[in-house]
Amino acid sequence: MADRESELIHRYFARSNARNDVALGIGDDAAVLDVPPGYQLVAAVDTIVEGVHFPVGTRADDVGHRALAVNLSDLAAMGAEPGWFTLALSLPAPDEGWLQAFSQGLLALAEAHGCALVGGDTVRGPLVITIHVMGLVECGRALRRAGARAGDLIYLSHMTGEASAGLAAIQRDLPGTQAVRVLQDKFLRPVPRVELGRALQCRATAAMDVSDGLLIDLERMCAASDLSAVLELDSSMLPAALVQTFARDEAWRFALTGGDDYELLFTAPADQVVPGLRIGRMDQGRGVQCLVDGATYPTRVRGYDHFADVS
Amino acid sequence: MADRESELIHRYFARSNARNDVALGIGDDAAVLDVPPGYQLVAAVDTIVEGVHFPVGTRADDVGHRALAVNLSDLAAMGAEPGWFTLALSLPAPDEGWLQAFSQGLLALAEAHGCALVGGDTVRGPLVITIHVMGLVECGRALRRAGARAGDLIYLSHMTGEASAGLAAIQRDLPGTQAVRVLQDKFLRPVPRVELGRALQCRATAAMDVSDGLLIDLERMCAASDLSAVLELDSSMLPAALVQTFARDEAWRFALTGGDDYELLFTAPADQVVPGLRIGRMDQGRGVQCLVDGATYPTRVRGYDHFADVS
Repeated sequence: MADRESELIHRYFARSNARNDVALGIGDDAAVLDVPPGYQLVAAVDTIVEGVHFPVGTRADDVGHRALAVNLSDLAAMGAEPGWFTLALSLPAPDEGWLQAFSQGLLALAEAHGCALVGGDTVRGPLVITIHVMGLVECGRALRRAGARAGDLIYLSHMTGEASAGLAAIQRDLPGTQAVRVLQDKFLRPVPRVELGRALQCRATAAMDVSDGLLIDLERMCAASDLSAVLELDSSMLPAALVQTFARDEAWRFALTGGDDYELLFTAPADQVVPGLRIGRMDQGRGVQCLVDGATYPTRVRGYDHFADVS
Repeated sequence: MADRESELIHRYFARSNARNDVALGIGDDAAVLDVPPGYQLVAAVDTIVEGVHFPVGTRADDVGHRALAVNLSDLAAMGAEPGWFTLALSLPAPDEGWLQAFSQGLLALAEAHGCALVGGDTVRGPLVITIHVMGLVECGRALRRAGARAGDLIYLSHMTGEASAGLAAIQRDLPGTQAVRVLQDKFLRPVPRVELGRALQCRATAAMDVSDGLLIDLERMCAASDLSAVLELDSSMLPAALVQTFARDEAWRFALTGGDDYELLFTAPADQVVPGLRIGRMDQGRGVQCLVDGATYPTRVRGYDHFADVS
């Protein structure tokens, strides 16, 4: 075929849901999009690499879901609503079965959030997926990492740890109990907290998503807000699937230093009612102190550092 | 270092030029950008892979330039002005010399076009660079591939072929004559035709950039506009560096089927004065007919198909 790339893109990706703010979508040199008055554009990018961010052999529909979910999570962390995305897909070969499943996983999540695929580039190479997502936020209302104040309480949308435990369960080939399946699903199918992010506008003082690990990401929020944090955690907060599958020490290691959860970490004044799990308090000073069941948890070994293992 | 990725990004990429429409730039979960009233957002994405789109061993500053240039070329083809971009960089190891040179090549071009880096993701993996560029166009004025009309004349910003000839010169390790250096530079340092694209607003009826080859890209424009095209070319149109380095037949092969030029291909009514090289005429019907020095050039073997060689 003379124009195989265009044909592939059209066959699997052109069914993306329409939005009437897409003046020009897939098929030209670029997309043309309408940003309504009163809104700002919110833009983020995330890349996932086979063998680095997901195991070789991960099902293509899970890869498609994950690639978009991690990006929608960035919009959620800003309190933005999803609008449009572009897809850059580097693929070893044009495997139609893989593309069909990948696009199904990707577009199902896109449709669930009303987010339209408006452009793409498909190239031959190692399996690397980059999605750039664009969303909209009411002018001046974006949630930032830098807005926390001393005395604010710290919340999570849901306790972290299940996703990294799920990855470990896949890598160690643990028997497929109900709990193990829950953990694996948390890794393979992260749920972007878009509705929560929207609800936190004007209520949270700072927000971010937990992608690299609770301790390291909280430290980033502290640095951005020029504050310290004290976490007060107890084992009743650990998700059931985690404690059913791993010993307590390992469960806490996943919860505090494991990545890939894509839960929202946010702060709010003590008198503000917000949905979420309260895990601590912001304070003056620097650094993160962590108490687990009343004992100090060492905070020196932290989350996922993308280059730490290759230098 | 606890947070090596953030540190790398800050060291090499945070110097990106400021624009006062960047409400929130690098360092949060997403960027927040102001789109002025009266403008539409234009968005495009392109990926380049080492060993596929540029030879292994290409200088890092050339890779950085090229990664952004191919994206700015998409904005040029829409008649849009560059605004902002995100960078997804998959890199085998955090080589600081490479990053320093890459960012220098990338940001020099960005600054020349007033285009601000507003987000990024750096991951460990094979060398793959994806840039998503966002620009602005006056409402309703974007140039499309689909607007050509029968009788319109066809133009190029500059004759194609030098870039693919330059790549061939690199791959064949040709002696570094002045002409060979000109060709190599056309491949390594493509010049996005942003100013020309802006000038073509309201003058050109259709536009696109030539990335995969003149014949295949013209065929795409014909398909989008539901027209045919007749090219009338003669050897006086071939760039000097091309005819000084390659035999006539091979020079025409580069000019008609070689990719990577990133020149603008556009159409305009016969009575419209436009800058550029006139190469043919649009007509009713389908397909592309090509005359070179009065003889029919076979149009069956065409440009670069990203997957043609792996299926």
